[in-house]
Amino acid sequence: MFNQLGVIGCGLMGGSFALALKRAGLVKRVIGYSKSPTTTERAKQLGVIDVAAESALLAVAGSDIVLIAVPVAATEATFKAIRHLVEPGVLFMDVGSTKRDVVDAARRVLRERLPAFVPAHPIAGKEVAGIEHADAMLYAGRQVILTPLMQTDPTLLQKATDVWAAIGCQVLRMSAENHDAAFAAVSHLPHLLAFAFFSAVAKQPAGRDFLSLAGPGFRDFTRIAASDPTVWRDVLMSNREEILKQSQRFRHTLDALEHVMKQGNSEALEGLIRDAASARASWQMQQPKAGGNR
Amino acid sequence: MFNQLGVIGCGLMGGSFALALKRAGLVKRVIGYSKSPTTTERAKQLGVIDVAAESALLAVAGSDIVLIAVPVAATEATFKAIRHLVEPGVLFMDVGSTKRDVVDAARRVLRERLPAFVPAHPIAGKEVAGIEHADAMLYAGRQVILTPLMQTDPTLLQKATDVWAAIGCQVLRMSAENHDAAFAAVSHLPHLLAFAFFSAVAKQPAGRDFLSLAGPGFRDFTRIAASDPTVWRDVLMSNREEILKQSQRFRHTLDALEHVMKQGNSEALEGLIRDAASARASWQMQQPKAGGNR
Repeated sequence: MFNQLGVIGCGLMGGSFALALKRAGLVKRVIGYSKSPTTTERAKQLGVIDVAAESALLAVAGSDIVLIAVPVAATEATFKAIRHLVEPGVLFMDVGSTKRDVVDAARRVLRERLPAFVPAHPIAGKEVAGIEHADAMLYAGRQVILTPLMQTDPTLLQKATDVWAAIGCQVLRMSAENHDAAFAAVSHLPHLLAFAFFSAVAKQPAGRDFLSLAGPGFRDFTRIAASDPTVWRDVLMSNREEILKQSQRFRHTLDALEHVMKQGNSEALEGLIRDAASARASWQMQQPKAGGNR
Repeated sequence: MFNQLGVIGCGLMGGSFALALKRAGLVKRVIGYSKSPTTTERAKQLGVIDVAAESALLAVAGSDIVLIAVPVAATEATFKAIRHLVEPGVLFMDVGSTKRDVVDAARRVLRERLPAFVPAHPIAGKEVAGIEHADAMLYAGRQVILTPLMQTDPTLLQKATDVWAAIGCQVLRMSAENHDAAFAAVSHLPHLLAFAFFSAVAKQPAGRDFLSLAGPGFRDFTRIAASDPTVWRDVLMSNREEILKQSQRFRHTLDALEHVMKQGNSEALEGLIRDAASARASWQMQQPKAGGNR
């Protein structure tokens, strides 16, 4: 149980975390700050936060848990704004989709205050951004990855684990490096491909007619192409090395498929499709076990 | 109202059409044939067909509507097997995902009997194939594209339009060429990309670990990668020219995105993402209007 949650960045992710903690009875009071005063005010009107703070630093003052839910590219500036109030015993977390850049920024800015920071990436989201879409159930049934450092305070790491588990997440731990390699493959590259594919279809002369014929397969394949441009600009930029590596792998597989198509080699094409289809058919999204924590 | 529906190919598509016509009270009797006698027998056991035919030709005899629901690559052989019983006034349709190859085969084989054939492509399916998954509602609320030829009998074209509309489809007409170009863009290329992407992820050394971290975005993006390999081998092969053209467009857009990532040009990257995201956000899958037919 926490006395006060400080949310820096009252958007979908930060707002949903506040609502989830309230719903679970894990926090007495939520204080929130957003760069735009209108957003902070809106968060208060919607009952997502109880108190509007006038700065990031003021959202930290008096809080025993702080969630930094700003775009990844704004994380370092946020650390700088709050570093004087990063006290031992207070749990600081972020929600960024990339972790090496966040960890690097934390090392640079927080220094001796680094142990208070537990880097976190909840695997949850919506295609709609903003505090209006904040949802107490956004994180329920999802995975959250913690990428602690050698210096991370074990007590705070346990607290972080407990709070995510309490709002229904399965909690995993790994290094920031492994995290970024994995998410380049299973999240960042699919977004890049979906953006590229949707633009390629939409921008061609007959694109409008083509789009009117698209069915459920297309709908699901392109769903993530509607993701927030600011968030994804930052993700693609900050993890670009791993993403470009994964894109190379993808291009090689695509080349192989197109090669057998050009050759007219039906048998080889069927073999390649069968590999993909059977692997996909046997894959299932991980669901948290009862109790959540592992 | 038809007296007898002949289904050649008792799989998901053919079986679902039979069930839909029965449910709508549009047919008195269904006779079915599949290459595998076990499948034909199973279709009868499941009540999808009433009578098992021992050949494609026998499924046509006495039928006033015939659905050819075999893999696209087997269409020409099917035309050859039944051509002697392709009579004027009997409605013949297929369900192939590509239309130029089907139309070419019909021209070659049916010749003076060509007017009886109305090429059809219902935009419906499941990732699971086979008669066990046949579903009377598979086509409800979906689009069906008819690609009639100059020679097509207008009365049969109207009958085809009516029967699809009666089972809940929105019926569109276009040329086989336009059909194939459009579906290369909105269906065939996405399948090719999904196969390529899933294989690329699954086959890398850490693929198994990566897959355990994948979330709902990945799940939806890769859903079509589980599609039937035989069906998609035929589709990708028979429409390869259009698909390869669309793939080139996609690669150019992907190149442009990766170029600005490599440059570190966040602003340009955001612009490209924003184009895709706003186009996708404003796109909606077409839903049939009340009454279905247009």
